[in-house]
Amino acid sequence: MKIGFIGLGNMGAPMAANLLKAGHALMVFDLNETAVGGIAAQGAAKAASIAAAVTDVELVITMLPASQHVKAVYLGEGGVLASVKPGVPLVDSSTIDPATVKEVAEAAEAKGNPFADAPVSGGTGGARAGTLTFMVGAKSGLFATVLAQMGKNIVHCGPAGTGQVAKICNNMILGISMIAVSEAMTLGETLGIDPKVLAGVINTSSGRCWSLDTYNPFPGVIEAAPASRGYTGGFAADLMLKDLGLATQAARSVKQSVVLGALAEQFYQAMCGHGGLDFSAVINMYRKEGRR
Amino acid sequence: MKIGFIGLGNMGAPMAANLLKAGHALMVFDLNETAVGGIAAQGAAKAASIAAAVTDVELVITMLPASQHVKAVYLGEGGVLASVKPGVPLVDSSTIDPATVKEVAEAAEAKGNPFADAPVSGGTGGARAGTLTFMVGAKSGLFATVLAQMGKNIVHCGPAGTGQVAKICNNMILGISMIAVSEAMTLGETLGIDPKVLAGVINTSSGRCWSLDTYNPFPGVIEAAPASRGYTGGFAADLMLKDLGLATQAARSVKQSVVLGALAEQFYQAMCGHGGLDFSAVINMYRKEGRR
Amino acid sequence: MKIGFIGLGNMGAPMAANLLKAGHALMVFDLNETAVGGIAAQGAAKAASIAAAVTDVELVITMLPASQHVKAVYLGEGGVLASVKPGVPLVDSSTIDPATVKEVAEAAEAKGNPFADAPVSGGTGGARAGTLTFMVGAKSGLFATVLAQMGKNIVHCGPAGTGQVAKICNNMILGISMIAVSEAMTLGETLGIDPKVLAGVINTSSGRCWSLDTYNPFPGVIEAAPASRGYTGGFAADLMLKDLGLATQAARSVKQSVVLGALAEQFYQAMCGHGGLDFSAVINMYRKEGRR
Amino acid sequence: MKIGFIGLGNMGAPMAANLLKAGHALMVFDLNETAVGGIAAQGAAKAASIAAAVTDVELVITMLPASQHVKAVYLGEGGVLASVKPGVPLVDSSTIDPATVKEVAEAAEAKGNPFADAPVSGGTGGARAGTLTFMVGAKSGLFATVLAQMGKNIVHCGPAGTGQVAKICNNMILGISMIAVSEAMTLGETLGIDPKVLAGVINTSSGRCWSLDTYNPFPGVIEAAPASRGYTGGFAADLMLKDLGLATQAARSVKQSVVLGALAEQFYQAMCGHGGLDFSAVINMYRKEGRR
Repeated sequence: MKIGFIGLGNMGAPMAANLLKAGHALMVFDLNETAVGGIAAQGAAKAASIAAAVTDVELVITMLPASQHVKAVYLGEGGVLASVKPGVPLVDSSTIDPATVKEVAEAAEAKGNPFADAPVSGGTGGARAGTLTFMVGAKSGLFATVLAQMGKNIVHCGPAGTGQVAKICNNMILGISMIAVSEAMTLGETLGIDPKVLAGVINTSSGRCWSLDTYNPFPGVIEAAPASRGYTGGFAADLMLKDLGLATQAARSVKQSVVLGALAEQFYQAMCGHGGLDFSAVINMYRKEGRR
Repeated sequence: MKIGFIGLGNMGAPMAANLLKAGHALMVFDLNETAVGGIAAQGAAKAASIAAAVTDVELVITMLPASQHVKAVYLGEGGVLASVKPGVPLVDSSTIDPATVKEVAEAAEAKGNPFADAPVSGGTGGARAGTLTFMVGAKSGLFATVLAQMGKNIVHCGPAGTGQVAKICNNMILGISMIAVSEAMTLGETLGIDPKVLAGVINTSSGRCWSLDTYNPFPGVIEAAPASRGYTGGFAADLMLKDLGLATQAARSVKQSVVLGALAEQFYQAMCGHGGLDFSAVINMYRKEGRR
Repeated sequence: MKIGFIGLGNMGAPMAANLLKAGHALMVFDLNETAVGGIAAQGAAKAASIAAAVTDVELVITMLPASQHVKAVYLGEGGVLASVKPGVPLVDSSTIDPATVKEVAEAAEAKGNPFADAPVSGGTGGARAGTLTFMVGAKSGLFATVLAQMGKNIVHCGPAGTGQVAKICNNMILGISMIAVSEAMTLGETLGIDPKVLAGVINTSSGRCWSLDTYNPFPGVIEAAPASRGYTGGFAADLMLKDLGLATQAARSVKQSVVLGALAEQFYQAMCGHGGLDFSAVINMYRKEGRR
Repeated sequence: MKIGFIGLGNMGAPMAANLLKAGHALMVFDLNETAVGGIAAQGAAKAASIAAAVTDVELVITMLPASQHVKAVYLGEGGVLASVKPGVPLVDSSTIDPATVKEVAEAAEAKGNPFADAPVSGGTGGARAGTLTFMVGAKSGLFATVLAQMGKNIVHCGPAGTGQVAKICNNMILGISMIAVSEAMTLGETLGIDPKVLAGVINTSSGRCWSLDTYNPFPGVIEAAPASRGYTGGFAADLMLKDLGLATQAARSVKQSVVLGALAEQFYQAMCGHGGLDFSAVINMYRKEGRR
């Protein structure tokens, strides 16, 4: 399929590379020349502008940093909607607020272009390995005909916007449970139980969760976790902070309180200065040696 | 094996019944005549006093409501330590604070009786079905020779007291994650995603946890969960409140902060008046219809 | 002085009326015809547009609901900056985020118009009585020559934007302390001390604060407080919610954590459905009869 | 008046000294010989035991560290109740939980001794200067005849136990408001307003409180505050932690939730390692240089 791909950042570049490997033809655009060069070297065609990238394609995929970029790329002068042919499906994989999705989706439908939000989870590792999970908000028809073929871990969450809702809710639970596990692992150690034994017991009981059994924040409990390599190379606390910001903002928009979600946002904010570390380093707010 | 069993409450009675089924001989004691009668009818011998229940046995098991009862039963006049033969192992399955365990364990060891704390998880259902998980704090020797044979879900957590530590830490994560899931499920519904779809997506992602995939607080998501039968017949909010009280008390004793743990305790406290409901009813603090 | 006044809501209308009483000539504009008619009846001249209201005046004052309105009125087509004479001072009394103030202030200065943000505290009662406190962010010169004469309770907080900062910080403390006082008054009553006696003791001790000695949330403690008249006619919880939203948003913009501020925001959010009540009604989240 | 005085710690010693200055005759007892020697040098008579200190006096005053000491001194073998003459009033100025007060008060009344709890606020400075505030729980008669003459800042809070309730509620508001002020002062500074100006504005507005206008945690805002001398020589964070522990414990005993109170307790707990500093040093959890 001929795809216009916009946004070649840490996540976008490997996603584009996998689409090439899968045999699709790509017209790519990004303000970053180096990023464009890298993917062009793998067989993609360079587009000189957004317009050029989307004018003559069967599908448009975008992967951008934040809401304002999505608005600009789709609604701006010389943007996607001004240039794409009616009927061509538009898929945005950025993680942004549901309100912006609704705004862009309505503008797209008005022009005759079906729109889907498809934020991903799995990080840069998953993007490279092609094992990302896509949480998709789209009309059933679009989902069945196009999106379902984009990969194996693709979940249909409902109409446009629900992909973001699913991701926001998932990451809010994740951000909170990581702090809960940090408190429990630290308390347990201080009370004299071996951290590995403690994790083992809880893993078979009602406290089990991904933050404990797969991504334990206590160093040495899980060899493959960032905690066992100085909290490097995982999901940066600053990104968790961004997602929790989207969660509290979305909650505000519907007048829903999220007490632990808001508290968790402030905790990751308090890590400022260490925001580049994996978010599981939040345990250092509790561990005495961590605090020093 | 000849066992002295003290404490025939909701948990103790079915535990005793299973020991009888397993072929053990029981000398039982409880202030509640009816409870004693019930288990006697299944083949246990009635003891007229704590002393009578433990004087001539090979193992003593106790299952009591709280720390003060454990102290009284073991250390009081005519209590277990005053009557049991030296060398007989003592196993307390009550859920109490680790400090009390240490006090009783030291008094027991001083008299030549190995002591183990073995709190359980699995609720009254698990007690009846004989599928409880025992979190055991005991010397390795005692564990290997006696406790390991008591059932299949038995975990050795370390020396005396660590059984309680494991249970406290597990339930603290459980109490917090249930609130986190309540916020996320409610936010998702308010933002327009189907609760069952949302739970399905998160179950395959990094937000997955027991509170979401097994015990979801949103009505109708999981048929077998208390939320789907009016929050009845599960783990009462008042019991979660008790366990979180043990967690914050233990944290205080070692000068360790547990911010979310303390917050969760206050949330379950705020349910007062509904404390008999399953703890997952905490979601009603967030759901509009729930609040009315 | 000839003043262009834009925004005749609950706060703006009485402010304009007081300026008329003080002998100033007013050109007024608002989309609400009724509001315009009301103030015109008191001697103000009706302007048909923003442009008409500011073209020929010595000072411009605006009082608007939120950031987007301030941006539109000042920066929009046919807005204040497009129509006002260079050199004319501009004063915005809206309560908005400091970032928007900076943006508008820079645009104004670029056009040669000194800009001041001057949010008020004192509520509609203070607006009518002319006893509002103005928290002013402006260049010293502008403050001395113009603003200092606008009334008696006028504080210079620093350069443009600092007026909003002062108000946001004040209201964040206010929102938190009202919850703290609610917890303490409720706990004290439950523990058996007379609420009036309790308030009296704390008023002479280190727990004293405006929420306790002037605006006590416990019914009957202070006759003049909203709590003694069913939480009506005070500072609506929804307005406190708005201000706490500005506080957490401003904190996010500078990567500063505000844990209690964020928590308080969620508490007032949880009052949804009762948001029209005075914010001190937050005590009903703690009082048993309140909860029923 | 002939007074038996037990407990000569940092608070007790200066209190005893002031009673001597006021012309009272003292029989003093403390396990610390040095403390006894110091007060004896000022004219007090040394008692060899608790019994000796209370057998032949008209009034007994005690000032002890915690609940267990109060129980031991009053109810223990050779304790106050075993030795004092019926009718002699007993006044305990320790800060302890209301439940213990009730237990001791009932035992005292049963023996014919009127009992009062009279915790103080004002710190060691106030104790030396004789300017302490006594929060008194006692029968009206006892209060009028004896306690009202002990000094000028004496408040009658109600029956026995209410003195502790008043102190606990006051200090809970204090502990929370200090954190609220810390967040607001730090946020304001980060947003660019001068801390002294900010404090000045809030002092005249609805955010004013003792933590801001008398004991501001921001260095340099108030010269006399511990913040301006490295957080030394004030009210230690560990003592605030103790009082918040009493508050959450009392709340638990009456099934009342205190969300911010419990959160504040955890924050002061997190200062562990710096617990000797004044409690206003909690602001360092928010200030970047403080955190380093």
